[in-house]
Amino acid sequence: MKDLHDMIIPNYDDVLAAHARIAPYIHRTPVLTSSYLNALTGAELFFKCENFQKAGAFKVRGASNAVFGLSEEMAARGVATHSSGNHALSLSYAAGRRGIPCHVVMPRTAPEAKKAAVRGYGGIITECEPSTTSREAVFAEVQAATGAEFVHPYNDPRVIAGQATCSKELLEQVEGLDAVIAPIGGGGMVSGTCLTLSNIAPQVQIYAAEPEQADDAYRSFKAGHIIADDAPVTIADGLKVPLKELTWHFVSNHVTDILTASEEEIIAAMKLTWQRMKIVIEASCAVPLATILKNPEIFAGKRVGVIITGGNVDMDTLPWIKM
Amino acid sequence: MKDLHDMIIPNYDDVLAAHARIAPYIHRTPVLTSSYLNALTGAELFFKCENFQKAGAFKVRGASNAVFGLSEEMAARGVATHSSGNHALSLSYAAGRRGIPCHVVMPRTAPEAKKAAVRGYGGIITECEPSTTSREAVFAEVQAATGAEFVHPYNDPRVIAGQATCSKELLEQVEGLDAVIAPIGGGGMVSGTCLTLSNIAPQVQIYAAEPEQADDAYRSFKAGHIIADDAPVTIADGLKVPLKELTWHFVSNHVTDILTASEEEIIAAMKLTWQRMKIVIEASCAVPLATILKNPEIFAGKRVGVIITGGNVDMDTLPWIKM
Repeated sequence: MKDLHDMIIPNYDDVLAAHARIAPYIHRTPVLTSSYLNALTGAELFFKCENFQKAGAFKVRGASNAVFGLSEEMAARGVATHSSGNHALSLSYAAGRRGIPCHVVMPRTAPEAKKAAVRGYGGIITECEPSTTSREAVFAEVQAATGAEFVHPYNDPRVIAGQATCSKELLEQVEGLDAVIAPIGGGGMVSGTCLTLSNIAPQVQIYAAEPEQADDAYRSFKAGHIIADDAPVTIADGLKVPLKELTWHFVSNHVTDILTASEEEIIAAMKLTWQRMKIVIEASCAVPLATILKNPEIFAGKRVGVIITGGNVDMDTLPWIKM
Repeated sequence: MKDLHDMIIPNYDDVLAAHARIAPYIHRTPVLTSSYLNALTGAELFFKCENFQKAGAFKVRGASNAVFGLSEEMAARGVATHSSGNHALSLSYAAGRRGIPCHVVMPRTAPEAKKAAVRGYGGIITECEPSTTSREAVFAEVQAATGAEFVHPYNDPRVIAGQATCSKELLEQVEGLDAVIAPIGGGGMVSGTCLTLSNIAPQVQIYAAEPEQADDAYRSFKAGHIIADDAPVTIADGLKVPLKELTWHFVSNHVTDILTASEEEIIAAMKLTWQRMKIVIEASCAVPLATILKNPEIFAGKRVGVIITGGNVDMDTLPWIKM
């Protein structure tokens, strides 16, 4: 297989190779439905439950593809990344499965539950300030000191090919989908979704869902070029990072539309999912349902895949409970 | 089929008939596993997820069997019950599917979420005080006024035969189980488990798990006769009711042992399940995991089925969050 490390655009052969490579380390997650939410939205919703994934999030797909695709020589120096949370967990998990070190730069403001979980998987944390600028500066120092292989949370073809295995499974599990919707932060999951669907199911529409308070992807999509915020504030803490050139390629070429929801709408959709579907999901993955509830005319009567991206929640601070 | 209304002991033919009768109205719920909880307990745990069941709890199995087994003439007068919550939801759901009225006597202290859900399914609520004595008195009035068919939450052969379909499915889904553990309140689920396992898998040990603060089944089991508390106080609000003669029959003849856990241990096991398995479960169904964690010597090295009985939780008052 060719070296995916350079900033090249992955193709569907890379997705097939990724799925074969990572299969021993990931779950084929279930697809759940809810007759209540179907009645409420007028759509048929198929929830791809990556909250049940290893390390609690879809990001283990891309991280595992990167880690297990390394040569022995590269792997020996370990891997390194910066992440707002789930990529850090996932890369630590994958590195642990291969038995190599994983260095992680995390915002000091990241949920304690996520820091503890990274350490639980053996990840070595260096803290930075909660801004993209600080994160990238601190990361450069760590990488220089260790020589570890950088695995970007999303702007990396190996990672995007890994994330693309999620919608490959979804298509195998659900027939006749009209649309797929996923949350968008840096765009890794959405890019993977675009990569798979544009190749093997180009008739399926692709929607991205974003918090109004971190709507840089929405504004980028409308403007036709990348607009990045340095430190947006939203309850959906996995979605604060900006698009980069590789994810912009997929988003600008294959996404049907980007829809946004307010903090209040996101929290309501999160609580509703916990109450009715009996599953624990992060605020980030409630954004798609929030936008479906807000735009029923787009989705009514359609079969819609909804990517539930992760379930790593700090149980002591739930956003609908005032303390 | 014979009339199961009289206080007779159901047999395995009744379970097979029940499963065929209720199949169109219930989910065949999934069995989930957790490598984290397996490592923590030293056992292989197989969680039968009735929190994903219709109406959010296993009780829809027994309620549906009772409702759909009624003659047209009996059905026309509707059904009635008293319940601390999930049986009320389930009977309302089943009655709604058959298009007949459902009268429910509920403690005024029951969670608002459960009352709203009963009304959401079309159930007609009459409130009583939170004691067995008051509940039975108010219920007698309601039944006299309506002529509705009484479906007891657990001391009813139709209900027990319905609950027994849960472990029938579990045996079909998981091979080689050494033990099954379920929470015990009135004993409906445990009796159904006994009914199925004693007939088709008598080698499987049956454990019941109970809150220390509502340990009437534990004390009954040790004493050899039913001991009933009138109004025990526990976070596990589905487990406050006492054994009755029919459930005592199964518990006294087929249960291997009854294990108890403190309120603190129950809440910790509930939070751990939400955090690690990413599923919403009631405090009542955290009691089995709490007792497994407390008694590792009983379960280590064994393949253990754990019945997750329901997921109907008031999301605004989680027991580990102080407000």
